[in-house]
Amino acid sequence: MGFPVVGVVGGGQLARMMAAPALELGITLRVLARDAAESAAQVVPGVEIGDETDLAALRRFAKGCDVLTFDHEHVPTEHLRALVADGVVVRPGPDALVHAQDKTVMRARLTELGVACPRWRVVPDAAALEGFGDEVGWPVVLKTPRGGYDGRGVRVVATAAEAADWIGRGEPLLAEERVDFTRELAVLVARSPHGQAAVYPVVETVQVDGICREVFAPADISDEHALAAQRAALRIAEGLDVTGMLAVEMFDTPAGVLVNELAMRPHNSGHWTIEGARTSQFEQHLRAVLDLPLGDTRMTAARAAMSNVLGGDLEDMYGGYLHCMAHDPGVRIHMYGKDVRPGRKVGHVTTVGEDAEDVRARAVHAAAFLRGDPE
Amino acid sequence: MGFPVVGVVGGGQLARMMAAPALELGITLRVLARDAAESAAQVVPGVEIGDETDLAALRRFAKGCDVLTFDHEHVPTEHLRALVADGVVVRPGPDALVHAQDKTVMRARLTELGVACPRWRVVPDAAALEGFGDEVGWPVVLKTPRGGYDGRGVRVVATAAEAADWIGRGEPLLAEERVDFTRELAVLVARSPHGQAAVYPVVETVQVDGICREVFAPADISDEHALAAQRAALRIAEGLDVTGMLAVEMFDTPAGVLVNELAMRPHNSGHWTIEGARTSQFEQHLRAVLDLPLGDTRMTAARAAMSNVLGGDLEDMYGGYLHCMAHDPGVRIHMYGKDVRPGRKVGHVTTVGEDAEDVRARAVHAAAFLRGDPE
Repeated sequence: MGFPVVGVVGGGQLARMMAAPALELGITLRVLARDAAESAAQVVPGVEIGDETDLAALRRFAKGCDVLTFDHEHVPTEHLRALVADGVVVRPGPDALVHAQDKTVMRARLTELGVACPRWRVVPDAAALEGFGDEVGWPVVLKTPRGGYDGRGVRVVATAAEAADWIGRGEPLLAEERVDFTRELAVLVARSPHGQAAVYPVVETVQVDGICREVFAPADISDEHALAAQRAALRIAEGLDVTGMLAVEMFDTPAGVLVNELAMRPHNSGHWTIEGARTSQFEQHLRAVLDLPLGDTRMTAARAAMSNVLGGDLEDMYGGYLHCMAHDPGVRIHMYGKDVRPGRKVGHVTTVGEDAEDVRARAVHAAAFLRGDPE
Repeated sequence: MGFPVVGVVGGGQLARMMAAPALELGITLRVLARDAAESAAQVVPGVEIGDETDLAALRRFAKGCDVLTFDHEHVPTEHLRALVADGVVVRPGPDALVHAQDKTVMRARLTELGVACPRWRVVPDAAALEGFGDEVGWPVVLKTPRGGYDGRGVRVVATAAEAADWIGRGEPLLAEERVDFTRELAVLVARSPHGQAAVYPVVETVQVDGICREVFAPADISDEHALAAQRAALRIAEGLDVTGMLAVEMFDTPAGVLVNELAMRPHNSGHWTIEGARTSQFEQHLRAVLDLPLGDTRMTAARAAMSNVLGGDLEDMYGGYLHCMAHDPGVRIHMYGKDVRPGRKVGHVTTVGEDAEDVRARAVHAAAFLRGDPE
């Protein structure tokens, strides 16, 4: 059998964070990056420079890999099908991944599976949007089916006229009711090709302007809602035949949980697992795509908190290490090797402990200090 | 200030295990390895091929590094002094490191510091060895002052005549009384240039033929002995002006702890800290040599166990992952990317949990299974 080679398409921080568990397990990680300065390309020896939308580049990259997986969802589905036809092992496969690439396909399939979602409709024109809004109530959430992330490709509109610029493009849009949620949740599930699945504790996510800012584990919700959220995530993983990590973002409402978004890769809502769970989502993803038995998903402490470090006033974040590490010997700092630009995710910090408020305050303080924000 | 570059002289598994915390902290790791197939050279992009006994190679390597540190103790002291004279930041510095390179220098200095050691004497010839053995009792432990590791350069002799081959070389040897110990212990301390020190819980080590096989944290000893062991390690770190990790191997005896060996780098007795402590010895070493505040050394669970995977009957250890991971989702496997040779350390496994016997049995089982041993 021998130690395998895992190829990751995309050179972002998710690929970078796979490097540590790969080297621990003796698994060779290769990365297809657009340029050598990308986050993962800085830390992995096996980097190939190429564009993920170029089938020839993908084919060259796939040659040396036992399994191909992803840092992001931007590889065209038809290229993935061509690779599968070549005999490349692609995990998750194109039929699964399309649900994380196309929000309309995802909504249709989840509805088929009986998974609770916000009410939704494909709206080809202003009249359809008008009708949907009048039915579910304004404002409504409007999404481009493909290409969105970190809040891009999503907006809230109070009238159909407000959406004239998007509608004018002539592509059908996805309209969804705006859910009056009490909090946002995320559930991570790993699933392997032979069908084993392992679910992590439900977490609460705090989003600002569509960008994940903080994650708290476990979420402070009833056992009943937590179990329902985990069951929904497991049903999706199986129903969509996911291999690797699946992140299911949800709205918690008094009536139950509703699925918002999916990602089929390690996810920002699971960065806390590096220190907060016995098996990190990055190792779990590698195990799952290699069809190895999955690891223990239990927490290493009663509570964990993750706070993203966004680009702010400080260009040099290393200077902040002195204060942060001296102030809190337990804070775990992760930096992605990215140039600081305002609002860009350049790192995260994680804390673990017994007390939810203490753990949260420590993570928020460290992240704010690193970016140069007075609190 | 900016993110620093740490250069590690030596491409073994200790340098390899520094790669994960380095990439997490955004610190660039460079490695000077003898060849590109070495353990760390496989996983780090900034590898320079060169010999650690070649001053020109060391100088070339040091050029791009903010601080130079070590995977092993084999760099000649005079080369380190030359680098320091060049202005290179070398941590630990040559005056500290010599105590981990030369056992006679170490014994003399520890005795000066008042640290309890086995009785010892430099024996230049057979008559001196004879006198020492008659005084402390036979058999005695005989050591070559330099170059030993994993049991090499150490032997037990029942008479002076038995040591004729070593004595015949004409170099003074170090003779030590053979201590009737109840168990072997190790204490890890990190110390930074500005003098901060952080000590880990005392662990028990199990050695077979001079090679560390298992480590159990914390050691099952009295608080009084544990505190004495930690105090001795801290006194040594300060007295020798150590920067980086210091591992102090000790004998536990009814009368107290006696220092056996020192290493000034991450050490086999601290591999358990990757999962078993809030800050691993590898991250702690990087923090210490960079003069960053040290991390939390507390354990992540009540108990941790580490078992080395030695080369055995199986050449392909990846096959064993299926059983080990399915049998125990919590077992943590570390492989070093080294070719399997009988008795060679090619990896280790770590377990954490609440029950000492359970944690120990799980680690021993996984390591034995991976090497192909029926238990």
